[in-house]
Amino acid sequence: MELNEQLIAALVKKVIDGMAANAADGPDIPIGVSNRHIHLTVEDVHTLFGEGYELTKVKDLRQPGQYACRETVTIIGPSMRPIEGVRVLGPVRRRSQVEISRTDSYQLKVKPPVRESGDLDGSAPITVIGPRGSVTLSEGCIIANRHIHMGLADAARYGVVDGDYVTVDAVGAKRTRWYDVQVRVSADFVLEMHVDTDDANAAGIGNGSFVSIVNE
Amino acid sequence: MELNEQLIAALVKKVIDGMAANAADGPDIPIGVSNRHIHLTVEDVHTLFGEGYELTKVKDLRQPGQYACRETVTIIGPSMRPIEGVRVLGPVRRRSQVEISRTDSYQLKVKPPVRESGDLDGSAPITVIGPRGSVTLSEGCIIANRHIHMGLADAARYGVVDGDYVTVDAVGAKRTRWYDVQVRVSADFVLEMHVDTDDANAAGIGNGSFVSIVNE
Repeated sequence: MELNEQLIAALVKKVIDGMAANAADGPDIPIGVSNRHIHLTVEDVHTLFGEGYELTKVKDLRQPGQYACRETVTIIGPSMRPIEGVRVLGPVRRRSQVEISRTDSYQLKVKPPVRESGDLDGSAPITVIGPRGSVTLSEGCIIANRHIHMGLADAARYGVVDGDYVTVDAVGAKRTRWYDVQVRVSADFVLEMHVDTDDANAAGIGNGSFVSIVNE
Repeated sequence: MELNEQLIAALVKKVIDGMAANAADGPDIPIGVSNRHIHLTVEDVHTLFGEGYELTKVKDLRQPGQYACRETVTIIGPSMRPIEGVRVLGPVRRRSQVEISRTDSYQLKVKPPVRESGDLDGSAPITVIGPRGSVTLSEGCIIANRHIHMGLADAARYGVVDGDYVTVDAVGAKRTRWYDVQVRVSADFVLEMHVDTDDANAAGIGNGSFVSIVNE
């Protein structure tokens, strides 16, 4: 029995060490809540805001090079119940992309898939209204997946590589675990987890909250 | 080493048996999504809809004795941006209670706590508008906690008693774990987990979905 007790002791120690390591890490990943927004091509900027129009940066976002613009659009779907004031994010992209929450999707009566940004093939159609014109995208409306941006050092620290999926615990007003959280690693990225307003509101967390990767 | 291998084998078997038992249970708890709604006192019914007015049942809910009424109200808070069409649920109660999502709370600019139904002391104030009058509740607005109604047989099957808290996994479009889910046991209850629209939409589940209690 002695050997068994030793083994059990070793196993228990390993589990406790693991728990201590997790506790020491603590919730150290800052949350960025993504409200509904749109990325536009140069062509769609011109259609919506006028030929030759250029977007106006008003605020840098946490991820380097990304920014909020002064411009907003109205989006509308088969329900004919528009959502106004949808923020345009810059810089311009190669494909226009509308990111909404599932709550928004019910108002619009569109059925966007949960997708990684940029993965738009077969995503939902939506109509975008600007002050100088409108565009009906045959695809481009998605619910963004939960994801974490991180730089190389953070990726090494967590032992993950670009494209990995991790599990995250959010301890807010309603404690919640998020599975299938995609990790995006780039030298240009700053540590930040992006969730949409549904996830943030369901968990009772917001900008300024911190969450932790679960070592399962 | 032989003994250690036996012990490890036994431990592994135990874990696998546990997993198999969980898998056998499967997600067997039906989800009921609670949209924003209101419960009213007799007095508030009279103020909002007229002296002597009685609520009109239009649909029984899953929990015996509870029903949706034909009547709706408008609710409004400090933002002065009303939410219309808030369903009245019957029968009348001893205290009026408004249940909204955190998403709703941002539109209204109210700050409701996450509470069990009926636990209203110190909850948020809100104004309720009916066709014949209005009521400003000094308290009564909450975000309902996640909870599971179950009868006596189900409680015995899960090994829980009234007031216990359990953990629930929801495998929808966005896989999510809900902690701190309150169990409510009564001979009158039918097995059903109630979540609000934020939780349902964040997880990508709805009425007709099933979830499972996690045996941690």
